[in-house]
Amino acid sequence: MPDRTPRLDLRRPARRHALMTDTADMTATDALAAIRAGRLTATDYRDACLDRIAAREGTIRAFAWFDADPVRRSTAGEGPLAGLPIGVKDVIDTADMPSQYGSPIWAGHRPRSDAGCVAAARKAGAVVMGKTVTTEFATRHPGATANPVNPGHTPGGSSSGSAAGVGAGFFPIAFGTQTAGSIIRPAAYCGVVGFKPSYGTMHRAGMKVMSESLDTIGVMARSVADCALAMGAMSGLDFGAPDAKAPRAPRLALVMGPTADQAAPETIALMERAAEACRRAGATVTAVTLPSAFREAYDAHPYVMNMESAEALGWEMAHASALLSDVLRERMEWGAGQNRAELVKGRAAFAAARAAFPAAIEGFDAVLCPSAPGEAPEGLGWTGDPVFNSLWTLLHGPCVTVPAGAGPKGLPLGVQLAGRIGEDAALLGWARWVQAAVG
Amino acid sequence: MPDRTPRLDLRRPARRHALMTDTADMTATDALAAIRAGRLTATDYRDACLDRIAAREGTIRAFAWFDADPVRRSTAGEGPLAGLPIGVKDVIDTADMPSQYGSPIWAGHRPRSDAGCVAAARKAGAVVMGKTVTTEFATRHPGATANPVNPGHTPGGSSSGSAAGVGAGFFPIAFGTQTAGSIIRPAAYCGVVGFKPSYGTMHRAGMKVMSESLDTIGVMARSVADCALAMGAMSGLDFGAPDAKAPRAPRLALVMGPTADQAAPETIALMERAAEACRRAGATVTAVTLPSAFREAYDAHPYVMNMESAEALGWEMAHASALLSDVLRERMEWGAGQNRAELVKGRAAFAAARAAFPAAIEGFDAVLCPSAPGEAPEGLGWTGDPVFNSLWTLLHGPCVTVPAGAGPKGLPLGVQLAGRIGEDAALLGWARWVQAAVG
Repeated sequence: MPDRTPRLDLRRPARRHALMTDTADMTATDALAAIRAGRLTATDYRDACLDRIAAREGTIRAFAWFDADPVRRSTAGEGPLAGLPIGVKDVIDTADMPSQYGSPIWAGHRPRSDAGCVAAARKAGAVVMGKTVTTEFATRHPGATANPVNPGHTPGGSSSGSAAGVGAGFFPIAFGTQTAGSIIRPAAYCGVVGFKPSYGTMHRAGMKVMSESLDTIGVMARSVADCALAMGAMSGLDFGAPDAKAPRAPRLALVMGPTADQAAPETIALMERAAEACRRAGATVTAVTLPSAFREAYDAHPYVMNMESAEALGWEMAHASALLSDVLRERMEWGAGQNRAELVKGRAAFAAARAAFPAAIEGFDAVLCPSAPGEAPEGLGWTGDPVFNSLWTLLHGPCVTVPAGAGPKGLPLGVQLAGRIGEDAALLGWARWVQAAVG
Repeated sequence: MPDRTPRLDLRRPARRHALMTDTADMTATDALAAIRAGRLTATDYRDACLDRIAAREGTIRAFAWFDADPVRRSTAGEGPLAGLPIGVKDVIDTADMPSQYGSPIWAGHRPRSDAGCVAAARKAGAVVMGKTVTTEFATRHPGATANPVNPGHTPGGSSSGSAAGVGAGFFPIAFGTQTAGSIIRPAAYCGVVGFKPSYGTMHRAGMKVMSESLDTIGVMARSVADCALAMGAMSGLDFGAPDAKAPRAPRLALVMGPTADQAAPETIALMERAAEACRRAGATVTAVTLPSAFREAYDAHPYVMNMESAEALGWEMAHASALLSDVLRERMEWGAGQNRAELVKGRAAFAAARAAFPAAIEGFDAVLCPSAPGEAPEGLGWTGDPVFNSLWTLLHGPCVTVPAGAGPKGLPLGVQLAGRIGEDAALLGWARWVQAAVG
C-alpha cells in the first residue's frame, strides 16, 4: 500500500492548497523565504527534519551514518544556505563522520578532511545531517534503503539514501553522484528532483571516484529552484531563477534514444502525456532520432565505466577482493581483463557523440526523455536500470528529472530534460517549465 | 662544484664505453635484461639502490618517507616490473607508508589504500622504495630536496624527489604528476627523462588532485625506453619500443611558443643545436608559430589551475589555513575570489586550443620545444618556472623531456617533445630519436 504523505503535494503545486505542508517537507527556497520573513527559524526547520528522521528512518534507512546530537549542537553559519540541512552521499568524504563508500572494506573509515564539495556546502552555511546510503562504491550492489513512497520498493541507486531522504523530508537537499544514472533514476523513483550538472561543475576532490570520464557530483532536492539554489551557492556559478516566468515556451526534442524499446508502458504513456501537455502549454515537441554515433557511445559506456572503475579499485581488488560483492568483483575482473584499447576506443566514441550533440539538437532548447524505464522495481535487491541515463551522462551536459505523476502501482514517475554542456541554468528553467506544464 | 657521477654517461650513449655503469645507475630495461640473462638478480639491483640511498640521501633528501627494512623484506613479485624499485611522489597514496602531500596539515596521514596507480605498479611487480618529496600539494612552496648533479641547485618541482631520486640512482622509475610543469621541468633539471602521457592515461584515484582539468600522472626514468616500459606495464596500453630503429627521420615543428622571450641564452643555443643535430640526422625541423588561441589558453592556465585547486583545498582553507605557506594561501585566496565565469572561460580556451592543435601541427610528427627556461636555478627556495610547460599540459597530449647536455654552470639541460592526444607511443619513439641525434 503506497505511503501517501502530504509530501507528495509538493510535487503537485496545483493541489497544494488541499493540504498543509509540514515544515520538514518545505523546499529550501520556501524555508529560506519563511526564515527571512520571520515566520520560521533555521533551528525549527532543522528540528522538523530531525523529527521526521526520528519518525521514519527506521523504515527508510536513508543514512549510512547519522547522529542527531552534533546536528542539534551545530550553529547555523552564514551564507546562502545558512542553516539548511544537507545529506551527503557516502562516497563523499566528511572530516567529522565516517565515510564508508558502501563497502565493508571501508568500514569505520574516518577521512581527515571534507571533500571539496562538502567544504563548499559548509562554507555556504549548510549543515551536514549525515552520510546517506550509497550502493557499494556507487555501483550495483544495493544498500538497505527503502523507497519513501512505498518501502517495499527500491529507491533506486546508487544515490539511494540521498533520494529517499529528500523524498522523506530528512533534508531538503542532498549530494548525489552519477556515473550512469545514479542521480536521475533514484530521484525519479522517489518523486524528487535530481540534477546532474555539466561534467566537472563540482570538484571531485575527496570523492571516491570510480570512472574519471563519467563521475559527476550533483544534487537532489524537492524543487528545481532548490537545485539551482544549492548548486549556485556551492559553486559560485549562476544557475538562474527557475521559478521566474519563462519569456517563451521551449522547443523540445523528444528523444527516446537507443534504448527506446526498454520503456515500460507507463513510461511510453508518460512521455506521450508530457509531450501533449507541453504542446498545449505552447511548446514545440519534435521526436528526434539520434544518429548512430550516439548508439556507439552508449554501447561503449560499460567499457569505460568498468575499466576505469577497475583501475580505481586496484587496491581493493588486490587486498580485499573477498569483501567485494560477487557482482562487483565479477564486473571489476571483467573490466581489468579487457584490452586497454577498448578504453581508448570508448573514450573516442564518447568524444564523437559529444561533438555531434549540438548539431543533433540544433534548433532545440532541450531534450525531453525518460528518466527511467518505469516505476521503481519491487524489492530492495535491484536498484533498477540506468538504461535511459548513461547516454546523457557520457555527453557531459546537464540533465534533470522532475516529478511527473505516478505509475500503475502508485509510485512516482519523472521526466528528464537534457541539455548542452554549460547550459545548466537554461536547462533548469526549461525543466521547471515542463514540470508546470505536465502538472 | 657539479657532482659528475658516472650516471651521467647513461644520458650520453656515445660515450658509455668510457666508464662502467654502477648497478644503481642501470636503467630498468638494462637491469631486467641482465636479470633475464642471469648476470644480475632483482635483489642485487634493489640493494644497489638501497646502498646508493644510504650514501647520498643525506645530501639529496629525495624522500618524504623512507624505511629500508620493509624494502629489504619485500619479495619480488611477478609481472613486467618484477622487483624493480619505484619512487612514489607524496601526493599519491600508499597504504603502507604515510602520505603527507608536502603539507604539515597532512603530517602523519596514513591512507587506508594504495592509489590506483600504485596498485597498478605493485600488480606489475614493482617495489615501492618510499615516498618522494613533493612541493606543498604539488604547488610552489618547495621541499628540502637538492639537485643530484649539484646540490646547491633546485631539482625543480613539484615532483622534486622523484626527479632527484631517479637522477641519483635511488630508483630507476618514479611517479610524478603535472599540473603546469611538474614532471618535465624537474626531469630536465636533474638530467633524467620525464614523461607526461596523454591526460587521463593513469587513473587519479588516491591522488591528492588539485586541478581536475590538468593534473596528470606520469613517470620519470633514466631512459625513454624505461618510461615506455613502466607506463605500459601499469596501464596495459602499448607505449611502443622507443629503442627500436625508427623507419624514417621525423618531421619536427620547432615551437618556442607564447613565452619564447623567457628562454635563457643556453636554451636558445640548445634549441638551435638540437634543431641542427636533428637536421643532420635527417629530420626536417620547421619553426612554427602557433595561432593566438594558444596564447589565450596559456593565459587562462593560472585561472583554471588556481580556481580548481582552491576548490580542492576547501577544507584546508577553512580549517588549517595557518598551516598553508603564505604563497599558497595567497594563491588559493586569489583563486577562490575570482568570478567563476573565469573558470568556464578558461576551460573553453583550453578546449579551443586543443581543437586547434592538430591543424596547427599538421604534417609534423611532433613538436620540439624547450623543457625549461634554462638550467636549474641556484638555491632550494625556488623550483623554477613552468613557463615552457603549462601549454603542453593543458593541450592534454603527451610530452617528454630527454637530457641534452649541460648549461654554463654544468647543470643538465633537456629538450622537450610534445604530441597529439593519444600518440604517446609515437612520441616516445621520436623522443628517443631526437635524444640520439642530439647526443
